[in-house]
Amino acid sequence: MAREFDLINDFFAPLGAPSGSELHNGREGQIGIGDDGAVISVPPGQQAVVVTDTLVAGVHFPLQTSPFDIGWKSLAVNLSDLAAMGARPAFYSLALTLPTYDAEWLSEFAKGLKAASESGCGEMVPLIGGDTTKGPLCITVSAQGWVPNGQAIMRHSAREGDRIFVTGTLGDAALGLKLAMPEFWGDFTPLSFSDEDRAKLLEALNRPKPQLAYSDFLREYASSAIDISDGLLADLGHILERSSMRFGYDLKGCIDLAALPKSQAMQMYLQQTHDWRAILSGGDDYQICFTVSVDKLESMREAARKYDLEVYEVGSIELRMEGDGQLELMKHGQIDFAVMQSLAMKGFQHF
Amino acid sequence: MAREFDLINDFFAPLGAPSGSELHNGREGQIGIGDDGAVISVPPGQQAVVVTDTLVAGVHFPLQTSPFDIGWKSLAVNLSDLAAMGARPAFYSLALTLPTYDAEWLSEFAKGLKAASESGCGEMVPLIGGDTTKGPLCITVSAQGWVPNGQAIMRHSAREGDRIFVTGTLGDAALGLKLAMPEFWGDFTPLSFSDEDRAKLLEALNRPKPQLAYSDFLREYASSAIDISDGLLADLGHILERSSMRFGYDLKGCIDLAALPKSQAMQMYLQQTHDWRAILSGGDDYQICFTVSVDKLESMREAARKYDLEVYEVGSIELRMEGDGQLELMKHGQIDFAVMQSLAMKGFQHF
Repeated sequence: MAREFDLINDFFAPLGAPSGSELHNGREGQIGIGDDGAVISVPPGQQAVVVTDTLVAGVHFPLQTSPFDIGWKSLAVNLSDLAAMGARPAFYSLALTLPTYDAEWLSEFAKGLKAASESGCGEMVPLIGGDTTKGPLCITVSAQGWVPNGQAIMRHSAREGDRIFVTGTLGDAALGLKLAMPEFWGDFTPLSFSDEDRAKLLEALNRPKPQLAYSDFLREYASSAIDISDGLLADLGHILERSSMRFGYDLKGCIDLAALPKSQAMQMYLQQTHDWRAILSGGDDYQICFTVSVDKLESMREAARKYDLEVYEVGSIELRMEGDGQLELMKHGQIDFAVMQSLAMKGFQHF
Repeated sequence: MAREFDLINDFFAPLGAPSGSELHNGREGQIGIGDDGAVISVPPGQQAVVVTDTLVAGVHFPLQTSPFDIGWKSLAVNLSDLAAMGARPAFYSLALTLPTYDAEWLSEFAKGLKAASESGCGEMVPLIGGDTTKGPLCITVSAQGWVPNGQAIMRHSAREGDRIFVTGTLGDAALGLKLAMPEFWGDFTPLSFSDEDRAKLLEALNRPKPQLAYSDFLREYASSAIDISDGLLADLGHILERSSMRFGYDLKGCIDLAALPKSQAMQMYLQQTHDWRAILSGGDDYQICFTVSVDKLESMREAARKYDLEVYEVGSIELRMEGDGQLELMKHGQIDFAVMQSLAMKGFQHF
């Protein structure tokens, strides 16, 4: 107990809300690491958005990942969820399970958390509490943000005719994973990426940037949104599934393969391998996929230019007719059956 | 992915907020498992209390613990934190890491969660989201509750002269752990507990009752409170430490060993072994330890009788003089050095 408590104070207390900050405004300054829980005042006119993501060593990051990157990623993937819902991050809690007490590891891990907590547009997102336990390395972060009442962006509200957008290049983290764990990919021929490209791909894997700059923009223009954590196809699939359920007719997504934004490394990889799995189903992108109704397209593009936000139109939502799949991959206006077949052959399954 | 999604739908969706419930009152019915996050409206005039607890297999429960009990305990220990802060539970999220997909295990686990979610005084506490991942068994629940603005009960507000109370018998879970894992306790002579006592001790270990009936009562009468998860001494220690820091003078806790509420099994165990560790430092009690100022004692006792709440006065908070320990264990008004020494010899340390 004594040592667990030291651990919390030494490494995590500096990540908490500085005294005097808004989170301390309760009658008794009622917040902070070390109580049974934290007490939070939600700003008037706002709702809370609650997200949770777990990272397991060897499953969500390679075992040799640096503790800084593990810390960064643990928080970043949650901030990414908040961004996709149009929320501004308010605070997070940390459940950290560690095999042994390792001061150096903890110090680096805390630095990674801190860097991610400062990666948004505003102030540091404070850590408000959590739990530290002994066991196989596993990190659960639960983050919370605020949205104006009734304005959270959901997955279930895409409609026929909406255009599909993404916020940046896809598949780089998947290529980074192949670089980091070549032994895991029997079918992966190491490519002659330049050192610069290798560094970029590994950074995409280890330090995904939560797209917090998009929160306000998405609330204004997106009809639905999701962060791409399991690959564009799987995550766009969630939008299609839930929007179809909600509106009572079947929707499909048509993706223009040529329109997908690709890094230089990805362009080379596709040229050499014709393997579309990384860019479409690789996972760990943490870009946002969102839909926009046709009547908002122009004003959306204007706002994107004004706020210097990258947006790439990659397809559209259509009515799904009998015999159609939920997702259609297009090249030159035609379904590309070869690519679709190659993807159906291998999927990503958590279990 | 597909199977993970099935898993969530099959086992956890029924634990969510029923449609039409208060949590669905957002403009778009904005809540539910399956989005990036859940959207929550905090009731006007209330603050949110956020708590997080992780259970690791083999650390926080014996490996052979039934999935029902694991589910129960995962949620119950969090509700216990909320109760100790005077909060009414509102919802929870679940981060579940599982080595393999096991439908039977999941079904029982979900039943345990559900039972715990219905164990309070009001309606079921709904599950609002979370994450399921593959890895060594580990469960993190983050629960949230509401308290009227500024009325959360903290650890840092006990004062000199306050009396110390607990809400029920202590140490039973520790004896239950000895029964469940005799191989772990070299020094444990199996005692001839009756079958009924054995069952009670194991139930104390596996199905701790969150003391939610005390939330409103504690807000009215307690000067400080904490739930006893690491043993009375460790948790009362947190109250003393934080209250001392806050008020700028050193406080100590004086515990009357004779006044500690004891189950029949504990009475027998103490008689035969004179081992006070289980009752004082055993952990997993999930009773609440709270302090009451002298001027509120009478009205507090009256309210406890009225609402049929057990309260046991077990000691007092005093000024700590030079040479005093932070905790003094008393018998017949004298410090019991023998017991204190036996406890100092062995402590409980997470790392």
